[in-house]
Amino acid sequence: MNEPPTYPEFSKHYPLLVKSLMKRPLYLYPDDVALVYRHEAGKYSRFTWRQWHARTCQLAHGLKALGVVAGDRVATMALNHHWHMEAIYATICIGAVSHPINVRLSLDHMAHTITHAEDKIIFFDRDTLPLVEALFDRIKRHVRAFVYMSDAAALPATRVTPLYAYEALVADQPQSFDWPDLNEDTHAVLYYTTGTTGLPKGALYTHRQIYLHSLHVSLFLHSAPHRPTDPPRPNQMITVLNIPLFHIHAWGSPFFSVLMCARILLPGRFTAEGFCELVQTEKANATMFVPTMLAMILEYQEIDRWDLSSLTMINVGGGALPLGLKRKAEKRFPYMRVGSGYGMTETYDGVISAHIKREMVDWPQEQIDQVMVKTGLPYVPAIDARVVDEAGHEVPRDDETIGQIVLRGHWIMEQYFKDPQRTAEAWRDGWFHTGDAAKVGPDGYITIVDRITDVIRCGSEMVPTVLLENLTCNADFVLEAMCVGVPDEKWGEIPMALVKLMPGAKKTEEDVLDFLRQEGVDKGKITKWMLPVYVALVDEIPKTSVGKYNKREVRKQLDRFLGMAKRVRM
Amino acid sequence: MNEPPTYPEFSKHYPLLVKSLMKRPLYLYPDDVALVYRHEAGKYSRFTWRQWHARTCQLAHGLKALGVVAGDRVATMALNHHWHMEAIYATICIGAVSHPINVRLSLDHMAHTITHAEDKIIFFDRDTLPLVEALFDRIKRHVRAFVYMSDAAALPATRVTPLYAYEALVADQPQSFDWPDLNEDTHAVLYYTTGTTGLPKGALYTHRQIYLHSLHVSLFLHSAPHRPTDPPRPNQMITVLNIPLFHIHAWGSPFFSVLMCARILLPGRFTAEGFCELVQTEKANATMFVPTMLAMILEYQEIDRWDLSSLTMINVGGGALPLGLKRKAEKRFPYMRVGSGYGMTETYDGVISAHIKREMVDWPQEQIDQVMVKTGLPYVPAIDARVVDEAGHEVPRDDETIGQIVLRGHWIMEQYFKDPQRTAEAWRDGWFHTGDAAKVGPDGYITIVDRITDVIRCGSEMVPTVLLENLTCNADFVLEAMCVGVPDEKWGEIPMALVKLMPGAKKTEEDVLDFLRQEGVDKGKITKWMLPVYVALVDEIPKTSVGKYNKREVRKQLDRFLGMAKRVRM
Repeated sequence: MNEPPTYPEFSKHYPLLVKSLMKRPLYLYPDDVALVYRHEAGKYSRFTWRQWHARTCQLAHGLKALGVVAGDRVATMALNHHWHMEAIYATICIGAVSHPINVRLSLDHMAHTITHAEDKIIFFDRDTLPLVEALFDRIKRHVRAFVYMSDAAALPATRVTPLYAYEALVADQPQSFDWPDLNEDTHAVLYYTTGTTGLPKGALYTHRQIYLHSLHVSLFLHSAPHRPTDPPRPNQMITVLNIPLFHIHAWGSPFFSVLMCARILLPGRFTAEGFCELVQTEKANATMFVPTMLAMILEYQEIDRWDLSSLTMINVGGGALPLGLKRKAEKRFPYMRVGSGYGMTETYDGVISAHIKREMVDWPQEQIDQVMVKTGLPYVPAIDARVVDEAGHEVPRDDETIGQIVLRGHWIMEQYFKDPQRTAEAWRDGWFHTGDAAKVGPDGYITIVDRITDVIRCGSEMVPTVLLENLTCNADFVLEAMCVGVPDEKWGEIPMALVKLMPGAKKTEEDVLDFLRQEGVDKGKITKWMLPVYVALVDEIPKTSVGKYNKREVRKQLDRFLGMAKRVRM
Repeated sequence: MNEPPTYPEFSKHYPLLVKSLMKRPLYLYPDDVALVYRHEAGKYSRFTWRQWHARTCQLAHGLKALGVVAGDRVATMALNHHWHMEAIYATICIGAVSHPINVRLSLDHMAHTITHAEDKIIFFDRDTLPLVEALFDRIKRHVRAFVYMSDAAALPATRVTPLYAYEALVADQPQSFDWPDLNEDTHAVLYYTTGTTGLPKGALYTHRQIYLHSLHVSLFLHSAPHRPTDPPRPNQMITVLNIPLFHIHAWGSPFFSVLMCARILLPGRFTAEGFCELVQTEKANATMFVPTMLAMILEYQEIDRWDLSSLTMINVGGGALPLGLKRKAEKRFPYMRVGSGYGMTETYDGVISAHIKREMVDWPQEQIDQVMVKTGLPYVPAIDARVVDEAGHEVPRDDETIGQIVLRGHWIMEQYFKDPQRTAEAWRDGWFHTGDAAKVGPDGYITIVDRITDVIRCGSEMVPTVLLENLTCNADFVLEAMCVGVPDEKWGEIPMALVKLMPGAKKTEEDVLDFLRQEGVDKGKITKWMLPVYVALVDEIPKTSVGKYNKREVRKQLDRFLGMAKRVRM
């Protein structure tokens, strides 16, 4: 696998490798600042591309010294900082597999992913030290060494052992490394699913997949139709990397940002103040948020202290955004683009996402909003997306008929690691079966309506719960809403809505129904039989570790929630 | 090769195929006008993406009906029109190999390429009919069928046979085609070199190479640093495709223009009037010229009749541009970008090209001009370019030391068709050896100075003739200049310049030397010993079929040219 290719391999198969992403900034802008890490208020580390690459090379030698060989899994449990970026690139580019551990999983699930992945080395930092200590007894037989990422000279007092200090590991290593010309199908990264329906599964990706993702996503980003009211695109992206690196590699940004020679600002643990300071100090022009981060920024009392005017490219994804939050955010960040979109651990980011077509650039904002609430357009031709019925035939493009969305393309995960059976269940007939329900419009826009298993089957009809939830959230007195099916003798299932009201809102279960009737049924967005039969006003809606609605949990406690609900219609 | 791939192939190896380029416009903009062909003044054909694709599918069925199978070569001898685009796509996407014949070759060389390629079918049009008739006796035993591309119902009176009418061939065919999922390394196109040093050689490219070229080139185009004085980038490229489709596929534009959903305007035979009419009628915003085309436009008497103001993206490449022509053109087309660049039949277009870095966007024009006269930056990371000495070691980045430029990357041709020996000579040690001499600056800018074989070896020094030629052309009284070495007992070789003066210029051989001394030696661009020893003022400089200086011819007739020359220094 590591034989250096020559003619004829190079002539037609110059390999698509992650190491190539580093070549562009190193060739064009070696002395530009590449990475900036904010340790704490006012304390920053800065590295040029040349410096960052030199450190990554040193770490590659350090990994070799620790006995890491091609194919080994090397894990990280860490915040977003330059050590984390170095660890990911050094691991991947020597031919090993980077496994960024989702530190928001339960200890049980974390221990499972570490032993299942057979992680040989675990990198961690001050922030995750308590987690590693809590896991240590369960993983110590499997992990050969731990590396502590810090600029402190001393190691922390801990029973975690054998433990190496990152800076000592790299200190005397050469600043260049002869990165191997790997086969492009070499595995590069391993991410585990959040395991809402069982143990987390490991999604494996190859070098080729990451390279092609970076390339296509960069192209689509740069060539997206520009509206006259859009701010000009900056020549250099200066981006705050908020999304945790363990979260499908922060939606791919550590890879495409390097290819695009962007400046990458690393906030460590995300805080509103830290974010604002980074933006002001570095004149950041781009960032990505999940809704909870955006909420933290907007709730931050001292936000007006900071100059955030450089921020012209903001993407929000990874969850539904309540209308109230969206309005508040749009006032603060006029250029914010709330992009609904679709992706999962198994499909990387960038599979289907909301964007406009060329002919829409002059449309008024309200009409654009109607387009942007759809899940979006598939990343054609990199991603081939179809919505199919149970026989595998495409459903009509009527924006109504619901089917399962199946995918193939350049960055759908290769396999579930060490799980050929579940791999075969998902990858059938040349298509990856997502388990998500969707519909397609005549214009090609796809709307994800639900997990196939969450769809409420009411009589012969399917009620897409996500549609119902989004519609309910449009009420300005609603903060969150979740819909599930309740078993019913006559209909099979009937819809129940759990609703969390905005703080201070004085509204009733009937108000929810009235709103849905007026805004949903009367405006033709849903039919009458989709209206919830039960509405429960609740203090909290159960969520998973990544902040998604936990429908499994609600179904488990269905009787309890039914007890809190009011029947609002027959 | 044509087995439909499924899991696990699709999961990691969703193939990179030319058919995928068509998917993007078909999905996003099926009813937008895609191709416009100007038959003659005022007579246009227009096709939407859906219509163009339907016709391409019909032709694919037509090719099958003519007995074309995967791997067969299908040739075209034609102007730039929609039939030609259909023939190229249909041929490639069924798995056959498109061979666009260079109709500017000599009859001998054309006959050689047709028999060497073993073309099974030849498509031609009214314009190339006389050529096909002239070739017929030499190729009739090899070619199974001819197809006449025209919307006329009747076939022309000709002895070329068997002859099919294009429109009759496609008329009753189905408008969809189940394009095969080919192996991405399937051969797609075959171009022959111009054969300045012997018989033309066939350069073979694969689907993967074309796809990756389109993707990278589109990204680099869209993400290039934008200067404050640059016009805004339009959301849709409307491009006049002037470069002949047989000329390395018009620098790749028929492929990346489809991926980018551009509108493609096809001028048939290039004329100044036809071009201007197309631009005005279709509001074209982009085009590419070779210098002779630009000269034709600027010499066109009635140019002021036309509104060409929509043209904001003009690229000139494929040859040196005399300074006088450049100045005249810049006045007419303020947005013109004269991009020097480097590519050859064996390397596709887009290997090294002149573009600025981010930090230069605010530089004054004169400084930018200094950057843009260098050949440019390699397309990192898609193309890996090195300048090496005879031992294969990289030369220092001092902008002085000359070495051979060697390449590898995603779109360096796979092989010379049926010529393993010359393939092996060019592809050695994992690098394609271009035979071109170059130097590299500390900033990574590469300057091609000459063919390795054209460099004048004067004493222990190498005089790069292209540098000398470009410098001479900077004189406003010089139209064209060529430099060759003249054998010399003491020095080995000494430089001679052939100079064609601008019409009406009253200048002498000494004036040429004086100019080079002032602008070259005094300004540190060349050293004194690089100055020509002989200068010949000539009426015409010998050129090849593609308009390049023909140094072989000059060397053959060296005595004749020496007889016309004056010794201007000792």
